[in-house]
Amino acid sequence: MIFGSPLLTRLVASFKKMPGVGERSAQRMALFILRSDRLAVEDLARTLLDVKERVGLCEVCANVAEAPHCVICSDARRSDETVCVVEQPQDIYMLERTGGFRGRYQVLHGVLSPLDGVGPEDLRLGGLRERVQTGGTREVIVATNPTVEGEATALYVSQLLQGLGVRVTRLARGLPVGGSIEFLDEATLGRALEGRREV
Amino acid sequence: MIFGSPLLTRLVASFKKMPGVGERSAQRMALFILRSDRLAVEDLARTLLDVKERVGLCEVCANVAEAPHCVICSDARRSDETVCVVEQPQDIYMLERTGGFRGRYQVLHGVLSPLDGVGPEDLRLGGLRERVQTGGTREVIVATNPTVEGEATALYVSQLLQGLGVRVTRLARGLPVGGSIEFLDEATLGRALEGRREV
Repeated sequence: MIFGSPLLTRLVASFKKMPGVGERSAQRMALFILRSDRLAVEDLARTLLDVKERVGLCEVCANVAEAPHCVICSDARRSDETVCVVEQPQDIYMLERTGGFRGRYQVLHGVLSPLDGVGPEDLRLGGLRERVQTGGTREVIVATNPTVEGEATALYVSQLLQGLGVRVTRLARGLPVGGSIEFLDEATLGRALEGRREV
Repeated sequence: MIFGSPLLTRLVASFKKMPGVGERSAQRMALFILRSDRLAVEDLARTLLDVKERVGLCEVCANVAEAPHCVICSDARRSDETVCVVEQPQDIYMLERTGGFRGRYQVLHGVLSPLDGVGPEDLRLGGLRERVQTGGTREVIVATNPTVEGEATALYVSQLLQGLGVRVTRLARGLPVGGSIEFLDEATLGRALEGRREV
C-alpha cells in the first residue's frame, strides 16, 4: 500500500489509469491533492462531475460539445465547403491554433487498427458521406496522423467518399519549421523533395 | 478556450496545476474523463474529497496518515533506534521498497532553499531534536537528495542534533546498480572511489 493510506492508494490508482500518467506521477499528483486547499479540491471534484454530466459529443462532427452542436458547427461564419477529418478532439485545438482553417471538422475518435481490433464501425464516420453529399462540401482534408494507421484511415475515408465529386486531400509532408535537414528521417526528406514548391 | 467547452477548459486548467502535468497531458486527461464511464468519474470525485477530508500528516513524523499516527509510527515491531529523515512522503515509499530499513521516519516536506525563500521554519523539523533526545534514537540517517539543497539541509539537521550523542549519517554515494562507469559523472565516480569497500 502506498504511503500506508488506503485512500491515497486509491487516488494514485485512479490517476494511474489516465493516459501518460505513471506510478511516480500519480503519487506526486495525489500528494499535491493532499497539500491543496480544501476549496480547490472541492472545485476539482465538482468540475469532474460537471464535465461528465454536461459535456458530450457534437451530433454533427463528434467534437466535444456542451450543447447538441459544438462551437464550431454552431459558428455561422465558418465555411461548409471544407471538412477536416481528425483523429481526436485535441487535433482540432492544434489546427485552430494555426488560424489557417475556417471550415468544419469531423472527429473520428480513433484510427483504423486491425491489430487492436479497431474497424470502420468503431470510428465516428457514420454521417460523413451523407454530410458531404448534402452539406455543400467541396473538399475533405484528411488530417489523420502520418502513421501506418493514419494512412490506412485516410485511404478508407477517401474510398468512402468516392463518386461524390469532392476533393479529398492530405496535409503536406515535409520539413518541420525550425528543424534541421541533418537530423531528418529519409521518408520525410523524400516527401519534402517530392512536394517542393516554387520560391 | 480549449475544445470550445468552458467546463473542459476548466478541468484542463485544474489538471495543469498538478506537478509534472503540462498542457498536452492535461488535455489528454480531460478527454479521458469525458470518455470514462460515469461511475468511475463519480468514484474519482469522491476519492478526491475523501483524501482531502480524511488524510493528514502524522503527529510524530509528518508522514501521510489517516489517523493521528501513521502506519509506520504505529508499528510496534519497528525500531525506535534509527530515524530516517526524508524530503517527501514518496521517499518513504522508495525506502520501504528496499526492505532494508526497519526504523522510523521524519518527513521534512521540503529542503532548505534560500533562493526560494525556504528556511528551517518551513520544514517539519520542529519536534526532531526532542524526539531524538527522548525517544531512544541512536542514529539519524539524513536521506535528503544528493543536491545542493539536500546537502545543505543534511548539514543543518546534523547541527541541530549536535551534542545529543547520536550518530548522524548520510546515504552512500556511488555507482548505481546496473549502471555503467563509462557514462557516470566525475563527482559520483569520485565518491564511489572514496567510499570503496573490501570485496
